[in-house]
Amino acid sequence: MNRTSLVNLIFSKKSFLCIGLDTDLSKIPVHFLACEDPMFEFNKAIIDATHDLAIAYKPNFAFYECYGVKGWESLTKTIQYINLTYPGQLFTIADAKRGDIGNTSQQYARAVFDPASSGMDFDAVTVAPYMGEDSVKPFLSYPDKWIIVLALTSNKGAEDFQVAKDTDHHLFEKVLSKSREWGNNANMMYVVGATKAELLTDIRKIVPDHFLLVPGVGAQGGSLREVSEYGLTRECGLIVNSSRNIIYASKGTDFAQKAREEALNIQAEMEQHLIKKAGTL
Amino acid sequence: MNRTSLVNLIFSKKSFLCIGLDTDLSKIPVHFLACEDPMFEFNKAIIDATHDLAIAYKPNFAFYECYGVKGWESLTKTIQYINLTYPGQLFTIADAKRGDIGNTSQQYARAVFDPASSGMDFDAVTVAPYMGEDSVKPFLSYPDKWIIVLALTSNKGAEDFQVAKDTDHHLFEKVLSKSREWGNNANMMYVVGATKAELLTDIRKIVPDHFLLVPGVGAQGGSLREVSEYGLTRECGLIVNSSRNIIYASKGTDFAQKAREEALNIQAEMEQHLIKKAGTL
Repeated sequence: MNRTSLVNLIFSKKSFLCIGLDTDLSKIPVHFLACEDPMFEFNKAIIDATHDLAIAYKPNFAFYECYGVKGWESLTKTIQYINLTYPGQLFTIADAKRGDIGNTSQQYARAVFDPASSGMDFDAVTVAPYMGEDSVKPFLSYPDKWIIVLALTSNKGAEDFQVAKDTDHHLFEKVLSKSREWGNNANMMYVVGATKAELLTDIRKIVPDHFLLVPGVGAQGGSLREVSEYGLTRECGLIVNSSRNIIYASKGTDFAQKAREEALNIQAEMEQHLIKKAGTL
Repeated sequence: MNRTSLVNLIFSKKSFLCIGLDTDLSKIPVHFLACEDPMFEFNKAIIDATHDLAIAYKPNFAFYECYGVKGWESLTKTIQYINLTYPGQLFTIADAKRGDIGNTSQQYARAVFDPASSGMDFDAVTVAPYMGEDSVKPFLSYPDKWIIVLALTSNKGAEDFQVAKDTDHHLFEKVLSKSREWGNNANMMYVVGATKAELLTDIRKIVPDHFLLVPGVGAQGGSLREVSEYGLTRECGLIVNSSRNIIYASKGTDFAQKAREEALNIQAEMEQHLIKKAGTL
C-alpha cells in the first residue's frame, strides 16, 4: 500500500487505529479451543468485528512462533484472510522485529513481502536498527512496502540504550537521523512508544513527515490524547496500536462485540483528534 | 547444555567450530530439489558429514522463514534430527536475532526453548539488545539455555551505531557492560564479528570469561588466526562460525565430502590454536 492510499484510508475511516493481534491461547474465549485452528478463528472474528474501525492489523509474530509450525500456519492464514476479504481496506504490519546482515535480511524480507515464496504478503515489517544500514536496506527493495524501524520503544528497557543519558544525542535520535537517509517518508516509519509521549515533539523535529507506529496506548499506560497532541501531522502521520485492551475486552462469547465497542471508543476519540488537527475532515 | 558440558565438548573434539545452516535452495546441489523436503535433507547430509568436527550448528532462521510454513517445517525437522541423532554431542544455536517487550520475548523464548509448545529445543538463541533488559531477560528463565546478545556484528552497518565514534564509549561496549549484569558467563554469550578482530582485546577486558560467538570467518573475510589470538581463553571462550565456506564447498554430488574436508581444515587449525593457548590438550 502506498502513502497516498494509506492517508486516504485514514481519513475515510476517520481512524488511525491499528489492532495488535497478540493472540494468546490462554486469553481467548475457551470455546475457540475446540476449533482446529483457534488462533486463526479468533483473529478472523476480531477482524470481522472491527475492520471498519481499524485501519491496520499487526500480528505479533512471537505469539505464533511459540507454537512452531502450527503457529506459522495460523499466522499465514490470518494475513491471507485479511488480504482476500478486505483488499485495499487494511494496512498490515508484520510485527517481527527482524534484522540481520544483508544477505539474511533479504530472506527475512521475502518471508513477509513475497507471497510466492512464503505465502505472506504484509504491507510493512518492524525492523531492529542495531545492525545498521545493510541490515535494513534489503527490506526497502519492495515497491509500496514499508519498514518500521524501532526508534524509541514503550518498554522500561528503552532506557538501557535508546535514551541513555551519557551522550549529546540519545541513541534513538541517532537512529532517526541516520536511518532517515536510507529511505523516505513513503517507505519508512518509526516505532515510537506512547509511554514516551513527551519526547514526540523532539522526534517530530527530526522526522516531521514520517508515519510513527505508536504502541503502548492502553495496557502499557500511554495516553492517546498526548500522543495525538504531540504527534499528529496534516496527513495524520500516526498509526496507534492497541492490542490487549481490544482483543481481550471480554473472555466471554461477547468478546467480538466488546472488542468492537472498545475499538469504537478509540476510533471516536481519534476522529476528534483528527478534526482538532485539521480543522475539519 | 551447561557450561561445563560445552567446554568438555570443545576439548574432546579439539574444535570450536560452529557450522551455520544458511540453507539456500538456489545454492544446494540440484539433486536435492527432487526431495520432498530439500532443505532438511541437505542439512541432514551436512550434519552427518561434519558432526564429529563441529561442536555446534546454527540454523539461520531467515533462510527457513522465507519459505513460510514449509520452511518452519524444515527448520523444526533439522533441530529435532540433531537432538535425536547426536544427543549431548552438539550445541545448537537458533540464529533468530529476536527481542521485543517482555511479554513478547517470553513467547519468542518458548519458540526456541520449549519443545512441548513449538517442537523446537535449541541450546541458545541470538538476541538483539536494542530494547534493553526486559527484552532479553525472559530468555534467561530456562535452565541450561543460553542467550547470545549481539554486541559487535561483522557487517558494514555495525559502524552506524555499534561503533559510532561520537561518544566516550562505543555502543557495543555499553551493551557488553550493561547486559553482563543481566546474566552470567554460564547463560550469556556475545556475538562479536571476526571482521573486527582488532577490537577483541578491548572486548576481553569487559567480558574476560564469556563465550563469544564469532561469525564472519570465511566468506565475510575474518581471520581465524587473529580471532583465536585475541579471543581465546583458558576454557576456549570462542565458538567460531562458518557457513557458506563449508556448506557450499561444492555444488556437486561430492558436496558432503567437500564440506567435511573444509570443516576438517578449520578444525585442524583450531586444534593448533587451542594447543598454543593451553600448552597441551
